[in-house]
Amino acid sequence: MREIIKGPSFFIGRGQGDGLISFGSGQPDLPPPPEVFETLATYRDFKYGLIQGSAELREALAQQYPNAHRDQFVITNGASEALDLVLRALHKPEGYVLLPRPYYYSYPHNVWLAHMQVRYYDLDKGKIDLKNFEENLMGCTAVIINSPSNPTGTIQDIPTLKAIEKLCAEKGVWVISDEVYKDLMYERENYLIEGEKVITINSFSKTFSMCGHRVGYLYARDPKMVADVIEMKTHTSMNTSIVGQEMAFAATKVPREHVEEQLKIWTERRDVFYKGMLDLGLDVWKPEGAFYLFPKFPKPATDVVHDLYYDHQIITYSGEWFGNPNRVRFSYALDKEKIEEGLERLKKYLGSLS
Amino acid sequence: MREIIKGPSFFIGRGQGDGLISFGSGQPDLPPPPEVFETLATYRDFKYGLIQGSAELREALAQQYPNAHRDQFVITNGASEALDLVLRALHKPEGYVLLPRPYYYSYPHNVWLAHMQVRYYDLDKGKIDLKNFEENLMGCTAVIINSPSNPTGTIQDIPTLKAIEKLCAEKGVWVISDEVYKDLMYERENYLIEGEKVITINSFSKTFSMCGHRVGYLYARDPKMVADVIEMKTHTSMNTSIVGQEMAFAATKVPREHVEEQLKIWTERRDVFYKGMLDLGLDVWKPEGAFYLFPKFPKPATDVVHDLYYDHQIITYSGEWFGNPNRVRFSYALDKEKIEEGLERLKKYLGSLS
Repeated sequence: MREIIKGPSFFIGRGQGDGLISFGSGQPDLPPPPEVFETLATYRDFKYGLIQGSAELREALAQQYPNAHRDQFVITNGASEALDLVLRALHKPEGYVLLPRPYYYSYPHNVWLAHMQVRYYDLDKGKIDLKNFEENLMGCTAVIINSPSNPTGTIQDIPTLKAIEKLCAEKGVWVISDEVYKDLMYERENYLIEGEKVITINSFSKTFSMCGHRVGYLYARDPKMVADVIEMKTHTSMNTSIVGQEMAFAATKVPREHVEEQLKIWTERRDVFYKGMLDLGLDVWKPEGAFYLFPKFPKPATDVVHDLYYDHQIITYSGEWFGNPNRVRFSYALDKEKIEEGLERLKKYLGSLS
Repeated sequence: MREIIKGPSFFIGRGQGDGLISFGSGQPDLPPPPEVFETLATYRDFKYGLIQGSAELREALAQQYPNAHRDQFVITNGASEALDLVLRALHKPEGYVLLPRPYYYSYPHNVWLAHMQVRYYDLDKGKIDLKNFEENLMGCTAVIINSPSNPTGTIQDIPTLKAIEKLCAEKGVWVISDEVYKDLMYERENYLIEGEKVITINSFSKTFSMCGHRVGYLYARDPKMVADVIEMKTHTSMNTSIVGQEMAFAATKVPREHVEEQLKIWTERRDVFYKGMLDLGLDVWKPEGAFYLFPKFPKPATDVVHDLYYDHQIITYSGEWFGNPNRVRFSYALDKEKIEEGLERLKKYLGSLS
């Protein structure tokens, strides 16, 4: 009997090993820089921290953004909490939030949990079609932009991002820019979306492999948004883990070479996996950022996920969970040998289909 | 010029020292047991943990409750997040939540942030009047019980708690029992409120002085409530800090004597402060749990807080923030010498009033 796989949570606790290869979870396998742990040996703090987050951590972050000030940052329990708080702060009874489709699977839930409604516009091969974007923008309270994108692995062109900045500013629409993969880009440097009503969301999870430590942040140019989020967080979770923030602060001091070295590894994996999928004849977009491939299959994605898991011991995520029922998400947060073995199994599976 | 003191956040960063005595913040000054930090020296984990929380931590918690199972627990970013998630899970468009008055100052905000409405019933000298409680219960989705109470320092009598269990079960009303001070009781052991629709909320913050590490939990007997909270937390913050949970697990292994030793210190402080306030002629309830005194003043509480801060270098919290404009909250999470010095200053202040 095949137990039905309803969502990513099915795979929790079913990781690598025992013959299983997981292309499921979107978390780096490479460890954090050692500096992150060095601070722990003598750590003895226990009292509440500032709700807004440690001043030294916010100061370090402010230095990474042009013209930013530490008072514009709030440290959160990962990017997830940043998104949750921002959407709750933006709540309007009949508010709409515009999402790209495919989307990161939490986005619609985050909007609903803030008691607002979702409006979708479809990406074109992972790219924003500006006309389509603009047609759907009318009446929206906010838009979420996610470049590089999970699950598509695509990045948005700079002229597109600039046009979005301009359009949203003109129409007074908030831009929530989820840039958690900004340090994992293969094609160009990140373009920071700017504007008075722009909220940048980021995290230490992907850049520094600190997923489990849950340290993210938001950077809002609008002082009222910052104040509203702090007021809310006072009641909903208080300060972000003080020791997590200490680890994150240590990460901000790690030389840039660390990220560059890791990027080389990601690029190598991307190349092997992307080429391998092309060789198998799959319709797939070349990842420009993050660590996901999102190939199309000739069967419904959820069936493919079942087949691959039960018949080929491969974990993948159905595109249906991300708003695209024909594609399957493969995370390549695992070593090259496993990617190659995964490609072999995929080949067998595709052979069995034709 | 006296800057206006609008709420507790005014005092953040204005702690003990420089002649200032803080009876403000509700966090233990005594450090956590050393075992909590010992685990850090070799800690190297970095990946996502289970959204529900570490299985070993939940197992240890389940052993502290009769007939409980680890699957009934969710580990959260402090009791605050537990409350936030539970209320959001209980959301109904016209839902009311019944709160005692005075209340912990976050409660009304938590209800509003879950898009529900608050109904209050007044406590009688810090105690629940059952008739009053029952009259207000009709039509409520949930009630929050907080024994021992912040800010009153009172505990509810066992017959009252049993009557509430029965009443709420009969009427199908959810009971959210915030028992974060259950290990800081001077008069008797804690009475655990039970029932199918009971959700117990607790934390490592007060018992083990781990406020800044933000590890709390909820224990729900209803499996759907547990599932709903996990589903929500998947999108709003993901797992609670993995290292915080490791520290909390170490705390569960600390011999009970640790808590008993600390309770002796709390009792001594309580006795000095309570007697001191009686000697000053203040109308104040004897703390039966937690570490708060809530005396009445002949001036509006917020004026008293201003006077004490600007003229006597004492930090206190206005009862107005807790729903009682005539009383002032004094936390005695500081050593006996400071309590005695604080009493001296209070005496001067009271003298200046008459």
